Amino acid sequence: MASVTRQLRDFMGERASDARGIVEQHGRSEAYHAAAAPDLVVFPESTQEVARIVALCGAAGLPMVAFGAGTALEGQTAAVAGGVCLDMSRMDRLVEVNAADMDCRIQPGIRRKALNAQLRDTGLFFPNDPGADASLGGMASTRASGTLAVRYGTMKDNVIALEVVTPDARVIRTASRARKTSAGYDLTRLFVGAEGTLGIITELTLKLYPVPEAISSAVCAFETLEGAVDSVIATIQAGVPIARIELLDEVMMRGVNRHAGLTYAEAPTLFYEFHGTDAGVAEQAALAQAVAREHGGQDFAWAIRPEDRSRLWLARDNTLYAAQALRPGARGFVTDVCVPISRLAECVVETKRDILATGLVAPIVGHVGDGNFHCNIMIDPDDAAELARAKAFHARLVRRAMAMGGTCTGEHGIGLGKMDFLREELGEAVDVMRLIKRALDPQGLMNPGKIFAAAAPEGTP
Amino acid sequence: MASVTRQLRDFMGERASDARGIVEQHGRSEAYHAAAAPDLVVFPESTQEVARIVALCGAAGLPMVAFGAGTALEGQTAAVAGGVCLDMSRMDRLVEVNAADMDCRIQPGIRRKALNAQLRDTGLFFPNDPGADASLGGMASTRASGTLAVRYGTMKDNVIALEVVTPDARVIRTASRARKTSAGYDLTRLFVGAEGTLGIITELTLKLYPVPEAISSAVCAFETLEGAVDSVIATIQAGVPIARIELLDEVMMRGVNRHAGLTYAEAPTLFYEFHGTDAGVAEQAALAQAVAREHGGQDFAWAIRPEDRSRLWLARDNTLYAAQALRPGARGFVTDVCVPISRLAECVVETKRDILATGLVAPIVGHVGDGNFHCNIMIDPDDAAELARAKAFHARLVRRAMAMGGTCTGEHGIGLGKMDFLREELGEAVDVMRLIKRALDPQGLMNPGKIFAAAAPEGTP
Repeated sequence: MASVTRQLRDFMGERASDARGIVEQHGRSEAYHAAAAPDLVVFPESTQEVARIVALCGAAGLPMVAFGAGTALEGQTAAVAGGVCLDMSRMDRLVEVNAADMDCRIQPGIRRKALNAQLRDTGLFFPNDPGADASLGGMASTRASGTLAVRYGTMKDNVIALEVVTPDARVIRTASRARKTSAGYDLTRLFVGAEGTLGIITELTLKLYPVPEAISSAVCAFETLEGAVDSVIATIQAGVPIARIELLDEVMMRGVNRHAGLTYAEAPTLFYEFHGTDAGVAEQAALAQAVAREHGGQDFAWAIRPEDRSRLWLARDNTLYAAQALRPGARGFVTDVCVPISRLAECVVETKRDILATGLVAPIVGHVGDGNFHCNIMIDPDDAAELARAKAFHARLVRRAMAMGGTCTGEHGIGLGKMDFLREELGEAVDVMRLIKRALDPQGLMNPGKIFAAAAPEGTP
Repeated sequence: MASVTRQLRDFMGERASDARGIVEQHGRSEAYHAAAAPDLVVFPESTQEVARIVALCGAAGLPMVAFGAGTALEGQTAAVAGGVCLDMSRMDRLVEVNAADMDCRIQPGIRRKALNAQLRDTGLFFPNDPGADASLGGMASTRASGTLAVRYGTMKDNVIALEVVTPDARVIRTASRARKTSAGYDLTRLFVGAEGTLGIITELTLKLYPVPEAISSAVCAFETLEGAVDSVIATIQAGVPIARIELLDEVMMRGVNRHAGLTYAEAPTLFYEFHGTDAGVAEQAALAQAVAREHGGQDFAWAIRPEDRSRLWLARDNTLYAAQALRPGARGFVTDVCVPISRLAECVVETKRDILATGLVAPIVGHVGDGNFHCNIMIDPDDAAELARAKAFHARLVRRAMAMGGTCTGEHGIGLGKMDFLREELGEAVDVMRLIKRALDPQGLMNPGKIFAAAAPEGTP
């Protein structure tokens, strides 16, 4: 370690640090998992530097963890085996916009708000919005999605190509800039969602979309949770190309009101957004309203002006903090399941019953158009019994979702928290994943201990 | 070989055959590549049978090639190393439709027309349409797309999960039925497009879409090829959610007229289709027409009634045969490049010039909304000099596309024909693909000689 540290310091200078404040900050995240600090943090500024760092760490057998904005929710950036953290925040350039092709090349450290701010004059935008102001490299690595995925897809759909430094320090490009390709294995989709365990993303080519001619947002409170969820299902099945359709239960609405000083009805509520032409948006909205009314929805409260829409979606985006308003001082244990939409009402209602029976503070928020929802369990981090109750509830929730044909994670990834559930969900497919991990990273140095338990290096018994 | 053949015959009975007619039929395809017959063809009827066949072949070190409908265009089903062909045509059931979730489970041997016929009463359809009546297992394996991809995505986007028999004869399921997931590596997308080199697909879970309330199709002739292509670009950039937008050059239109006895103008022509509500379709059509007019388009000839639409799209779908009408007795050498749409006009026009200079008969047809186009070079299969000229033209075309930021294959795959171009396009990324191939198929028995030159088995020098 010492000699590698010296080598890294030699060529990174002040951009390598083992100062306590720095390493501790890079071991923390927004997850409930215990922090785990790296031994050293480096701040590369180019692909070449990343390749050189990877080569040095590889030669010394040192673990490597890439760090974007630290907003991962399953402990993906915790350096559980120590080693070197590559903080990608200085690689944050929008390299190129091809407006005619509606794509752009970016460095992985750029965050989604900065990206969209820089795109503003092009008439284009990048749609994936996980709430937090995450880095795009991190969003790709966890296969993030968020509120607009029901219309625009997830990171899997919106990454065209990647540049990656592989564990053997090669720089590869996974695909051309063409919109579709059948050229060999889909390495792009392999690295998207690999949580940094197969290499370090150093550049992304992203799909962009035209800023819609018309956007309108609305909020609608429902008499019952079932009514709200059934209304989502009926809206999707009617083929309405809705841009966002988000569910907040009455507990979360209380948190939103407290956090932001708002006065929404504290009832199960849907947040809607429609994108299209003026006529298209009007048509979609009329259809969605009719469906809502049939399911016990109140009148739509509209937000048409950009500033009103921003306020509305800020309330939704801040649910992580809004949940905290329900129990100041508590820490969020955020769950993330996704089920086929036909089972969504059942899954949410059973989960709600489970929360009440367990006595946890766990508001629900969901990207329900995709069948994806979260309970933000607010726990006292110093109360081991409560953490145990939350974990038991979490296990029931995940198994409930899997029993309904769903997945243990819709968009947060496996990280530290869901390895056992991954195995329960996919069985021997996990062995195939592990074969790939071993083939690409035989020393097991890339973000070890994530997705799978840290692998013994090749050749060891 | 003899002992495995005996074992396979023992348990497959009459569903194993080495009759000359059968093996030869399974060595041929619609590609220009030389046929290569397997030693034996088996017709499995269940996943368990496939697993047993894979286990037996694996133990004996025998190559395995899965065969769907034989419509691949890069020789993907040619048994270049002999061995056993698994004809999947008896595994052709629609297993389950979940109408509420808009998904279905199918066996790999079902063909797209049969699938859509069986879905008719559900109000749902599967959109990927490569022209040929391909099997869905084959379409997944080549990452096929076709005419509706500009609106509905490719097989990469529309396969939710796969059941696969891996080279070590394990049966794995790559994902749950949830619409999105971050559960580990994206094995679904790894097997989609792997051309049968990593395992044999035995079941697919597919996304379905509501049959649109309104559909209308139109044909529009243009003064120039540039005008037609620029019109596509402008339509896409205007955000029109067009369902299909296909280009046929004047040579292909002549073939279409001859093949189907039609009287279209023999000029560069766009075929359009709009899906949506009545109002939405009208709005899209008006926009597309206005754009076309600005680029030298004539009036739209509309096809609104289902039978008229079918006739129109049959003309388009049959371009493989229509091209043959231009040169009876010739064989098609079908090319397949895809470029960023901003370079499409330039690429098509330069290619057109190249065709004229080379004196080949090579009508152009393209899924131009994606930047993807094909030249169907009609060659005399017995004329070696002509084949050489076609290959030289093909190499120029591929390199032209790659130089413009495009790919050597938009939807046909690498197969036998494009290994060298794959390396030119993606460089060392191909080594990463090969690491994966070796990890999953260390003996190199799964469709050897496709995507990569046949690998020496592990451990051999």
